[in-house]
Amino acid sequence: MNNRIITISREFGSGGRTIGKEVAKELGIPCYDSQIIAEIAEKSGFAPDYVEKTGENSSGGFLSLLSGRAFGPNNGDYLWQVQCKIIVKLAEEGPCVIVGRCADYVLRGKADCLKVFIHADLAYRADRIVKVYGEKDESPEQRIKDKDRRRAAYHRFYTDMKWGRAENYDVTLNSGTLGIDKCVRIIKELY
Amino acid sequence: MNNRIITISREFGSGGRTIGKEVAKELGIPCYDSQIIAEIAEKSGFAPDYVEKTGENSSGGFLSLLSGRAFGPNNGDYLWQVQCKIIVKLAEEGPCVIVGRCADYVLRGKADCLKVFIHADLAYRADRIVKVYGEKDESPEQRIKDKDRRRAAYHRFYTDMKWGRAENYDVTLNSGTLGIDKCVRIIKELY
Repeated sequence: MNNRIITISREFGSGGRTIGKEVAKELGIPCYDSQIIAEIAEKSGFAPDYVEKTGENSSGGFLSLLSGRAFGPNNGDYLWQVQCKIIVKLAEEGPCVIVGRCADYVLRGKADCLKVFIHADLAYRADRIVKVYGEKDESPEQRIKDKDRRRAAYHRFYTDMKWGRAENYDVTLNSGTLGIDKCVRIIKELY
Repeated sequence: MNNRIITISREFGSGGRTIGKEVAKELGIPCYDSQIIAEIAEKSGFAPDYVEKTGENSSGGFLSLLSGRAFGPNNGDYLWQVQCKIIVKLAEEGPCVIVGRCADYVLRGKADCLKVFIHADLAYRADRIVKVYGEKDESPEQRIKDKDRRRAAYHRFYTDMKWGRAENYDVTLNSGTLGIDKCVRIIKELY
């Protein structure tokens, strides 16, 4: 396929999804994130809420990824397969931004991807998730650590790539030091 | 100090030094690399050739960094101290680009740095070092692996930071996929 795709991996709270949406808007192309989840849910028969929780974040870290494997592929594996097909289909349809979902890995060798990773330090992200998602019982730092650990474990399990290493991306940007707007501008310029 | 500094870490053969020089030229500010080595040599009394080899690349990987430590700081430690002082002095003198030498770490909390990491895949770098530095007895892949391993060990020993992890930088760029010119443009835009 000849479509140019932007894939964005991101640490929780770094603004990666916001950046992806803004880049897509300015480029006039679609941005897929919750849409993918909805489509996974529809095609797989899983309830959207279950899919959203399982689609990228293994609920109990690395060990839970192994659960049920003694009896062949588990629900997570099935979702992974469905998700891969949807991502490839979306990339075939036209240029787009895909946030998360290991899309960089899924599309390797299949599409012309600009692979982006967005990160920021813990203090910046803690501050941001409270502003964006509100307060919760758990401290924002703990919420971030849990979510990042799950994303990293999921990514490692299905892709065998280390999450957050520069070598896996064309560009990584620190949204905390550079700011969201500058990240948007750089990605647009590289596209 | 209020000077804005660009620090560039780079994998061997990725074109990081070329990019640093070009950025500095276009911004009209100095780029320090071999100049630092010469200054280290002058101030420390070490021969320039010895300093160039020891200044950033521990000659035998991690173990050699430990050699001589039973009797207190070794030559490498002394060089590290001299090098730190010179980097801080250069940053105090005015805006500049500093390639390598763990300058990002040395200037932490001391200067307003744009921290850059340049990398590329092995095949791109192998091709590039043969063009830039010529053929040698050892294969280009082996030369790259040796040099990277030494840089990573040196970096880890003196800074306790993992080399090449996105979290340590404001921006990381893949010169192999993006091209040298685009890397130069992005760094200029971020500065």
